[in-house]
Amino acid sequence: MKIENYVRDIQGFPKEGILFKDITPLLNNPEARKKCLSILVKSLNGQKIDKVVGAESRGFFFGMLLAQELNAGFVPVRKPKKLPHETISASYELEYGTDTLEMHKDAIQKGNRVLIHDDVLATGGTAKAVCDLVTELGGEIVQCNFLMELSFLNGREKIKDNPIFVAITY
Amino acid sequence: MKIENYVRDIQGFPKEGILFKDITPLLNNPEARKKCLSILVKSLNGQKIDKVVGAESRGFFFGMLLAQELNAGFVPVRKPKKLPHETISASYELEYGTDTLEMHKDAIQKGNRVLIHDDVLATGGTAKAVCDLVTELGGEIVQCNFLMELSFLNGREKIKDNPIFVAITY
Repeated sequence: MKIENYVRDIQGFPKEGILFKDITPLLNNPEARKKCLSILVKSLNGQKIDKVVGAESRGFFFGMLLAQELNAGFVPVRKPKKLPHETISASYELEYGTDTLEMHKDAIQKGNRVLIHDDVLATGGTAKAVCDLVTELGGEIVQCNFLMELSFLNGREKIKDNPIFVAITY
Repeated sequence: MKIENYVRDIQGFPKEGILFKDITPLLNNPEARKKCLSILVKSLNGQKIDKVVGAESRGFFFGMLLAQELNAGFVPVRKPKKLPHETISASYELEYGTDTLEMHKDAIQKGNRVLIHDDVLATGGTAKAVCDLVTELGGEIVQCNFLMELSFLNGREKIKDNPIFVAITY
């Protein structure tokens, strides 16, 4: 079974000229989902993880599965004003303007070993912001992992100080 | 261990006068999370589930864990324009105006046995819309389950034709 077969190309989403990688077939197939999870877990080589951090909202899917499998806490990183308790925030640049992500201040303790997860590594803006949030709280980043990398966007350059693992490279 | 102890009251979120139930402590504690998952799974009494449908975005958390545990497909229900493939949609009333949810047309096949999950049963608007989407595609709703019910809002009235299970009642 190849997990690549469960990622669907959608031409022109969210806007013309973009080829979107749709992971909903992967979510909808239990065998492909398990295979994908085992690939991500295996890449950690048994390293202990205290917290898995997942970015809103497609990072929540496998982020939760990883946390459950690794017996770790799960920490959601969200768009502004979605998290109800005290937060810290990090901004990153978009094509036009900036975007901001937030994390609960008490979600990670100093010295926690952290796995960062998102569905796609594209320009790396989101990933870098999440790394900044984890580092600000004193977490140690064990790995940043992604279901897919759009390698032509060279996003890994922005997070090159951290170990990176990608299940599918485009 | 009581899972109730991992839900945190936040006064005045998202606006004054609202007491928000924050589940992030439950997500962040692997033992509490496992306990909660086992309560939800046990309530199904071994009934076969083909698909778990989770509502954006807090329904994604335990929705994914349920799908994994039950060896079922996971189907995200999302806000408009988030799902890239062909969708069906259902609207529901808010205090002022309406809101719409979408599901991929090919996510559920006729006769599939479906578990619907969300974090909170409040006014029941979201839950009813999700039920409508599943029914439109010919899915059979085995249960609607929720981490919490705000029973004073009487949302269960709107989905009373379906079996309902709630882990924590307020």
